[in-house]
Amino acid sequence: MSTPVKAGEPEKRRLTKAGRKTRERIVETAAELMSHRGAGGTSIPDIQAAAGVSASQIYHYFGDKQGLVLAVIDHQTDAKLAQQRPLLDSIEALREWCDRAGDRQDAMGCEGGCEIGSLASELAERDQSVRTGLAAAFDRWEDPIRSGLARMQARGELSESADIAALATAVLAAIQGGMLLSQVRRSSTAYRQAVSAVIDHIESHLVR
Amino acid sequence: MSTPVKAGEPEKRRLTKAGRKTRERIVETAAELMSHRGAGGTSIPDIQAAAGVSASQIYHYFGDKQGLVLAVIDHQTDAKLAQQRPLLDSIEALREWCDRAGDRQDAMGCEGGCEIGSLASELAERDQSVRTGLAAAFDRWEDPIRSGLARMQARGELSESADIAALATAVLAAIQGGMLLSQVRRSSTAYRQAVSAVIDHIESHLVR
Repeated sequence: MSTPVKAGEPEKRRLTKAGRKTRERIVETAAELMSHRGAGGTSIPDIQAAAGVSASQIYHYFGDKQGLVLAVIDHQTDAKLAQQRPLLDSIEALREWCDRAGDRQDAMGCEGGCEIGSLASELAERDQSVRTGLAAAFDRWEDPIRSGLARMQARGELSESADIAALATAVLAAIQGGMLLSQVRRSSTAYRQAVSAVIDHIESHLVR
Repeated sequence: MSTPVKAGEPEKRRLTKAGRKTRERIVETAAELMSHRGAGGTSIPDIQAAAGVSASQIYHYFGDKQGLVLAVIDHQTDAKLAQQRPLLDSIEALREWCDRAGDRQDAMGCEGGCEIGSLASELAERDQSVRTGLAAAFDRWEDPIRSGLARMQARGELSESADIAALATAVLAAIQGGMLLSQVRRSSTAYRQAVSAVIDHIESHLVR
């Protein structure tokens, strides 16, 4: 699999510095509103008012609401990747990453769930382009997990028989399902148990 | 943990046979509409039209839309449990159950995702009572998974050190996260890999 790319990248490169800042403010505002009300519950006028921009500015940067939603998905994925350690190439790194994510959920009272998972659940059946954007977002999120496992395997620490692509997917699924259960139960326990189980399973593939 | 109960049960028992049938038709219709449009996108008039009932009938049986949403959550949970083998008390039973769920997703083109997960994602932050109903639904879903593992442990097949409550949560999280990834990627591979990883992990706790 090649490195997944972001849908909104080409347009972004052509902007001036001021243009990029305005675009960024719109995306951040839209992301914040959508994380509370969903994409369907967030109108262009809502975003205009909250970001202090005109409708024509929004349409200039994003074309339409679909374009803005795709940019929000990219933005939320960037945020997730920024929280991730650059190298998830040891069991300890994976466990520490899982713990910190659990701590962040506790700090929020386990409210809100995963911004990307929530958009995925809301929009996957509503819009084919957005679904493709969400698939790219999950690929980008999964990529460093798989790369970390690949490094462990290249160093001879992880068994050659381990299917690292499948294990990376299992980690991401545990994150998504675990966050949803933690959100509903208002306790990070489900998240921690779900991700730990998969990390334990990865650990069983270590070459002793 | 005591056996989780359904929120809507007491009201249901007081109904006549005809009343139960009408109530059931309303719940099934609402469940079908909400699985496509979400709870927010499904209005009482939509349900009236599709079920051929009056608004007053809906309010009679459910009190308000919240009551109807809770009944839909119960209904969808009943449907999930009906798809489940009565005894998930062996690795083979767990694998077969996972395979059949993957096959069902393939048969749907991996469209739609999990009805309960979608409602959870949509409503967990919108309504405290519905969130509690969703937590009860996930408890009911998790319960037979944990019971199956408990049987394996009681028979001495599963190590006494295995934390069966945590493993059951990990299975449910893998189901939820795996279904979401499969929905977005339009392939049941993620679902199968996610759930298989947790079953493999459970298998590592078998007493040889």
